[in-house]
Amino acid sequence: MKIAVFRSEGRRQVGVVADDGSTVQALALSDDEAERGALALIARMQAGQALPDRAGPLLPWASVEPEAPIPLPHRNLFCVGRNYHAHARELSGSVFQANDGAKEAWPIVFTKVPQTVIGPRDEVRLPAGITEQVDYEAELAIVIGKGGRNIARADALGHIFGYTVVNDVTARDVQMRHQQWDLGKSFDTFCPMGPWLVTADSFDGADTRVRCWVNGELRQDARTQDLIFDIPTLIETCSRGITLMPGDIIATGTPAGVGMGMTPPSWLRAGDVVRIAIDGLGEIENRFV
Amino acid sequence: MKIAVFRSEGRRQVGVVADDGSTVQALALSDDEAERGALALIARMQAGQALPDRAGPLLPWASVEPEAPIPLPHRNLFCVGRNYHAHARELSGSVFQANDGAKEAWPIVFTKVPQTVIGPRDEVRLPAGITEQVDYEAELAIVIGKGGRNIARADALGHIFGYTVVNDVTARDVQMRHQQWDLGKSFDTFCPMGPWLVTADSFDGADTRVRCWVNGELRQDARTQDLIFDIPTLIETCSRGITLMPGDIIATGTPAGVGMGMTPPSWLRAGDVVRIAIDGLGEIENRFV
Repeated sequence: MKIAVFRSEGRRQVGVVADDGSTVQALALSDDEAERGALALIARMQAGQALPDRAGPLLPWASVEPEAPIPLPHRNLFCVGRNYHAHARELSGSVFQANDGAKEAWPIVFTKVPQTVIGPRDEVRLPAGITEQVDYEAELAIVIGKGGRNIARADALGHIFGYTVVNDVTARDVQMRHQQWDLGKSFDTFCPMGPWLVTADSFDGADTRVRCWVNGELRQDARTQDLIFDIPTLIETCSRGITLMPGDIIATGTPAGVGMGMTPPSWLRAGDVVRIAIDGLGEIENRFV
Repeated sequence: MKIAVFRSEGRRQVGVVADDGSTVQALALSDDEAERGALALIARMQAGQALPDRAGPLLPWASVEPEAPIPLPHRNLFCVGRNYHAHARELSGSVFQANDGAKEAWPIVFTKVPQTVIGPRDEVRLPAGITEQVDYEAELAIVIGKGGRNIARADALGHIFGYTVVNDVTARDVQMRHQQWDLGKSFDTFCPMGPWLVTADSFDGADTRVRCWVNGELRQDARTQDLIFDIPTLIETCSRGITLMPGDIIATGTPAGVGMGMTPPSWLRAGDVVRIAIDGLGEIENRFV
């Protein structure tokens, strides 16, 4: 099932999208619930309630204003760094510290503030005068349904509510100069998300294709099979001693092909359009201004 | 003015503490507002409303159950790493990467999840089997009143609502093995906070004394004058391209004297009690279990 958040008739609504993506139908939620986007549905379903009734007309998806399925996460998004084998290789000569020296390697996990999230077609604002090195990162994101602490890998998939597409937009110069990455990842509008959530029962994140184009040029093209730390491992890692909560988002890392990995590096400029598609999920397309 | 959050008669209340700390009197807030702790007051005052009336009896502070002044921040706390000169020196031989190679040095900023926050006398849970290297970090924390983006250093103090004491509890082994620090800082209960907020009009964070004792032994003792990046610089840094919001918390970093800096390193164990005092703010004391 595809769950979308959109504006129609001047208010935010949560709806179900047809399998072919052509239409959407709102669900019967109060305005307060709809304001929370898919978080309201996740809360209801965690409370054992059924999906609300469909209400209102079938609307052409192209006629509504799409918003991020979780317009405002309840805390920072967890994000994973350097998590595709090929991407780790492309960065091996960069300033990024290797974690391969450790006997046991562990995922790199950082965060983005909730207010970075924007809709699947919204504009990303380049922070003028603050960074000259804005880069894209196409990523598969997990949304947690059932919370928990110390979730074992074997149980992890049962904690996923659904999946969506994010662009983990990054200011490389800022990311590097602060050593910790959170600020360089957290500029306003730096997390396009959408086009909707696909529920876990109808999507397999273990082997799907992730692609990213800049102004129509294919830059990233990988399968999630190439993940260094797979989705169950990421859930196990993030929940070690930290209670994961319904609605938590984990962005699973980006494949090879980022602008920083090019020779010479290529940064996003005003007017550039970044499109990201994940097979089985859909696509987002955002102009940088 | 000292603003405290506490439980009394089975519900959360927000109140004003007498200058000498002996008594507290609740403010007239709805239950929903009180549930948000000082965030509700900050929201009211940002909306130009007066402080609510005092309601209810003067209660001895010792008779109430204190809670963190912001029991659940609206997003991850911003935290600053290695921000006292003497602390930077004690870590210079450690695994922490130096940022001194950069021509311009920038603050290290990472985050803790909101759910780490506990009250000034609550117990910190050691995550059994997950870390063997739990350490304390006594810190002065700023709470933002008036939000804003690209706040200039010269204007920064006007954006502060108040100050409080936090213990930025850290699992050193986890902090280091993930390269990014957020997970090692974000275990459940890893952010004792309190005993209250002192509003900006009655406290000067630029030169006050920060002390920390473990089981009565003085471990940290410094003045905030020794900060590498002062409070206005931290606000300027965190708000560069990132809209700071009312209720945001910035923990300003810890002085020398952490357990990791000792020879040999000394880690917290079950039964240890950590007390942190900041002159002009008050103290928190938390048992590790």
